[in-house]
Amino acid sequence: MKSKAPSKRAQLTRKTKRGFYDAETINGILDESCICYLSFTIDQMPFILPTAYGRLADTLYFHGALKGRMMKALEQSPQVCINVSLMDGLVLTRAVFSHSMNYRSVVIFGAARLVTEPEEKMAALEALTNQIIPGRWEEARAPNAEELQATCVFAVSLQEAAAKVRTEGPNDKQADYDLPYWAGVVPLIQKAGTPVPDEKRKKEVPLPRSVVNFVSTAEDI
Amino acid sequence: MKSKAPSKRAQLTRKTKRGFYDAETINGILDESCICYLSFTIDQMPFILPTAYGRLADTLYFHGALKGRMMKALEQSPQVCINVSLMDGLVLTRAVFSHSMNYRSVVIFGAARLVTEPEEKMAALEALTNQIIPGRWEEARAPNAEELQATCVFAVSLQEAAAKVRTEGPNDKQADYDLPYWAGVVPLIQKAGTPVPDEKRKKEVPLPRSVVNFVSTAEDI
Repeated sequence: MKSKAPSKRAQLTRKTKRGFYDAETINGILDESCICYLSFTIDQMPFILPTAYGRLADTLYFHGALKGRMMKALEQSPQVCINVSLMDGLVLTRAVFSHSMNYRSVVIFGAARLVTEPEEKMAALEALTNQIIPGRWEEARAPNAEELQATCVFAVSLQEAAAKVRTEGPNDKQADYDLPYWAGVVPLIQKAGTPVPDEKRKKEVPLPRSVVNFVSTAEDI
Repeated sequence: MKSKAPSKRAQLTRKTKRGFYDAETINGILDESCICYLSFTIDQMPFILPTAYGRLADTLYFHGALKGRMMKALEQSPQVCINVSLMDGLVLTRAVFSHSMNYRSVVIFGAARLVTEPEEKMAALEALTNQIIPGRWEEARAPNAEELQATCVFAVSLQEAAAKVRTEGPNDKQADYDLPYWAGVVPLIQKAGTPVPDEKRKKEVPLPRSVVNFVSTAEDI
């Protein structure tokens, strides 16, 4: 486990025991989600966008529309800050002040690089698609030239990243343990519901393996 | 329903039919969550922080540690962009390119105002606490003077906000409907697990009504 932050801005300034800077922790969190919160600036003003991502080794990829607002902004000012968070539980304490959450969260700092090389772009889109549901890329039509042209893909290195993890029970002040209030953790669970086939389908196609696997395991993540 | 965006930057530039600018839609989304993604700048560089929030009428409140990194940054540069998103489903299409999500999302632009008036600060903390679980404020010890002093609370007006909502099935190109691939929506459901009482408790306290209500209704949100 790498205990040293890769940069000053990536270093936790408070509750530093919750900070992890090793790739295993960071990638483990990234691989459990498919939506990141992307922060960048437009004319030096903050802007935020929830968007899909994919990870390949030590690079995070996201995409957008060609010449859309995001692409234009990142061409001007490529610096981004990205967060991926898994919310695991509400931590209810006897004192209002001590309430908290259990979570596993990653923040990434870096410059977004426009992916121009066709092989890297296709690999990034495959990673993005399989990040939604593992194996989905093989069960859908690959992008054609026109679609590839209409999409821009950006890469951000995971070199400057930090994880913050809280997995504890309530932490009340000693005197508060005598108060007559309930304290504990309410776990939050994300699960998949029953898949709903496209109403506009022309033919019956059985549920693919990727979706069957996802629905059966989503309760555990 | 207010169909006009409150500002140019809050206006959707693509898929404009998914944009809603009325308070009913915006507040409805905000009231279903308690975690926002807060984007601001430090030395003109983007920074992002997931944090708890509370809503009171047309104001969003969030809090932090006195003299923490966020407070220092917002005192220097108060402009923020905030996102709250509810992820409702994975939209799987026959073409990789057409994959999407169903979601309800709000983005808020504004300047963060440090709350200094004690009554507003206490009301904001009550809203923050009840946003986690409705009714929790009454079932925990209120903040004392020392705790209030250690916390900074910021307010952001909801005047410049926009909702973006997707609730449809898959949208494939006509030619792709003949492909032998499954398409549909996989709903994502957030539910509460069984509450876990504090291991360090000194006395047995029954589950409060707020938690019982939350656990029984969380499956529906």
